[in-house]
Amino acid sequence: MERILITDLSEHTGKEVTIQCWVDTERNQGKMAFFDFRDRTGKVQGVVFGKPEVLEVAKTLKAEWVVAITGVVNERPENMRKADVQNGDIEIEITGIEVLNEAHALPFDLESELTIDTLLDYRPITLRREHEQAIFKVQHTIVNTFRSFLAGEGFTEFQTPKLVGGDAEGGAEVFKVEYFNDQDAFLATSPQLYKQILVGVFERVFATGTTFRAERSATSRHLSEIAMLDFEMGFIKDHTDVMDMTTKLMRAVADAVATECADELTLLEMEPAKAPEAFPVFTLREAQELILKETGVDKTNEPDLEPEDERFLCEYVNKNLDSDFVFVTHFPTSKRPFYTYIEPEDPKFTRSFDLLFRGLEMCSGSQRVHKYDDVVARLEEKGLEPEKFDYYLQAFKHGMPPHGGIGLGLERLTQKFTGVHNVKEATYFPRDINRIDTLLSKTKDNDEDKDND
Amino acid sequence: MERILITDLSEHTGKEVTIQCWVDTERNQGKMAFFDFRDRTGKVQGVVFGKPEVLEVAKTLKAEWVVAITGVVNERPENMRKADVQNGDIEIEITGIEVLNEAHALPFDLESELTIDTLLDYRPITLRREHEQAIFKVQHTIVNTFRSFLAGEGFTEFQTPKLVGGDAEGGAEVFKVEYFNDQDAFLATSPQLYKQILVGVFERVFATGTTFRAERSATSRHLSEIAMLDFEMGFIKDHTDVMDMTTKLMRAVADAVATECADELTLLEMEPAKAPEAFPVFTLREAQELILKETGVDKTNEPDLEPEDERFLCEYVNKNLDSDFVFVTHFPTSKRPFYTYIEPEDPKFTRSFDLLFRGLEMCSGSQRVHKYDDVVARLEEKGLEPEKFDYYLQAFKHGMPPHGGIGLGLERLTQKFTGVHNVKEATYFPRDINRIDTLLSKTKDNDEDKDND
Repeated sequence: MERILITDLSEHTGKEVTIQCWVDTERNQGKMAFFDFRDRTGKVQGVVFGKPEVLEVAKTLKAEWVVAITGVVNERPENMRKADVQNGDIEIEITGIEVLNEAHALPFDLESELTIDTLLDYRPITLRREHEQAIFKVQHTIVNTFRSFLAGEGFTEFQTPKLVGGDAEGGAEVFKVEYFNDQDAFLATSPQLYKQILVGVFERVFATGTTFRAERSATSRHLSEIAMLDFEMGFIKDHTDVMDMTTKLMRAVADAVATECADELTLLEMEPAKAPEAFPVFTLREAQELILKETGVDKTNEPDLEPEDERFLCEYVNKNLDSDFVFVTHFPTSKRPFYTYIEPEDPKFTRSFDLLFRGLEMCSGSQRVHKYDDVVARLEEKGLEPEKFDYYLQAFKHGMPPHGGIGLGLERLTQKFTGVHNVKEATYFPRDINRIDTLLSKTKDNDEDKDND
Repeated sequence: MERILITDLSEHTGKEVTIQCWVDTERNQGKMAFFDFRDRTGKVQGVVFGKPEVLEVAKTLKAEWVVAITGVVNERPENMRKADVQNGDIEIEITGIEVLNEAHALPFDLESELTIDTLLDYRPITLRREHEQAIFKVQHTIVNTFRSFLAGEGFTEFQTPKLVGGDAEGGAEVFKVEYFNDQDAFLATSPQLYKQILVGVFERVFATGTTFRAERSATSRHLSEIAMLDFEMGFIKDHTDVMDMTTKLMRAVADAVATECADELTLLEMEPAKAPEAFPVFTLREAQELILKETGVDKTNEPDLEPEDERFLCEYVNKNLDSDFVFVTHFPTSKRPFYTYIEPEDPKFTRSFDLLFRGLEMCSGSQRVHKYDDVVARLEEKGLEPEKFDYYLQAFKHGMPPHGGIGLGLERLTQKFTGVHNVKEATYFPRDINRIDTLLSKTKDNDEDKDND
């Protein structure tokens, strides 16, 4: 019999149907057996009574077994209906059970509170939790909205290369790959140079790709593999055009998460993000003045914001300006990469910005240097060899418009929309200094823990 | 003045506007100057006459300079109109020119015939060719259709990990990465194990990610980095359900390319793909019998098809069955990975298939082994250690539906839709044994060649 999805069952009331699903829960009550069944579209209750040969099979079923259930879709009696529950007004009276695959007992109660290590050690099963599914539904919505918003603004998607000949940007720690014939390659820390090259082709480009950072820290903020959402746009007047596009993009994302993930936000106990038509903007120095004035702590000579400054600023704009987002602009020339455009009126600072969201830096962006001679000069000032950038420089030699762009970390964005503490909870299969799926340096404790399943 | 896109100019006839664009071509005729200008939306003709101060600037402009052009949008005289050309009925009478960025002369005529090495050595500028833009428009359409079709069929997108702890699948050559603390990681050759894990979570998943193959060949078929389009689906009866989904997917892609890229196919001199409602299907042995009957060459004991067999089969179905696609099924158990489901009625063969398109293998797929004990047994038969697959095996221990899926190479698919000879032409920034953007082992000739620009 053709499979019916659980979400469509109410259209089949009174008829016999077959569903294919997992046993979500089972309650054996002697002469009767009750179940919740689960497929990708939701849950439904099933019940066996008065059919000894079916009951016999039903009593063998355990949680997570995979089954094909045939039965009649019945309306529940008035007094047994649950208004707020999917399929709360129907149940399946089971007439046949086919076991498609058995399952071992789960090593722990899936819906109990789990440590981050358990959550990650058992990812193949902990991803089945409603909480985890809600997180990745939000992530899916973010990625989809990023793509559809930018496509609507005339951006072209491209595939970013991951193997690069050198760590062109400098700065971030980089992983080395054994390439061919004793040559080394490196894993790209960003698609920066490629998206600039493609501004010369398509004007406006975006990519959703993986970047790699050899971060030697195992904090709640660090990942070795990051899913980056990048865009780059040509024919701008300055960095504020990029900030305007970023604002519209983030408003579209916040709106999509609020509307398409309303149930997930409820489950995660999160409010929709406050994304006003214009996000508050401070220069770095203005932000530091504000911190001095409000907290008495003098950071007015620091070259960057520290994590506690980011948290303070976000709390401040949330309380006083009704926004979960805030831009900080004009970071020092000495702290930003060679391709960042210098503010002509104050050359110690750049036309750069960070976007903070709920206490954390989400994205860096800037206007970029677009004149060939200026790029070469900036490379030399940063101690880099222009000859190594021959390929990239072709784009600048042969007609590059003024341009700028941003890179957004998908996992951080997911983390802050869903309110999870650790960025690894917002990553399907996180990698860090200690972990590639399994822990890299297993202690005896970890091994014993593993043996319990 | 606000920028107007070239595609919208005809809405502004009689008005003064500003466009921002590249100089596509310039024809200086003494007291007049003619230009074609280009932005991301198309081209328009511009003309200067009777304005000496504008003409003076106009005469300095060269191809690929980046400019802001102010002028009046005029209808062309009847006899000067070009019906088949974008904006063939209008031109801009230029009143002002602002140079946004100058450009060096191009090192060669961009629209001339180029060798593959020149095409790749100068990628930042050769990507600006109409021919190249057409290829990547087709690629963009393929990726978009892959995502939207599968989302419509209830699939969830996920982010695939690229760093893995070992070359789990075996077989393909794998790149080694220096991870942390003297530990090695590897670059994933496929998201296979992860998409199977996620069938246990979402039933139906897809990913568009990069995979890596350390292929020691520099042919027109080989790449070190491949953009893979993967899907995996649960609750199937056998591999034919996966083939049916693949057929519907490829028909959607072929249809989207035919309709959304009609102009690009014309430019590339390609016909739309023939994608009938059901694609022809042969078992490997049937295909080999056909080859024997039609060509007299006996390959009936070979474990796989060779490239010339794939070409023959595709020509055969194109001529006789009016299809550019053909499935070949039931490859030998000995040649397929451990996770491939064995055909119970003939255990020397598997429930596997390849999809061939216009002479080339596009995709491999199969039903997968879904019972825990069977997976462990298959691993052992293949000489792999089940303990190393602990993480993956969790999904099978705790309730895995019957499932299957495919992996499609985006570059090959693009190649065959666009008719380019070399898969590298269908890759933005291809990497192979000899090249990461620039050639890895530069000969003196190459260096001299470089110096010419």
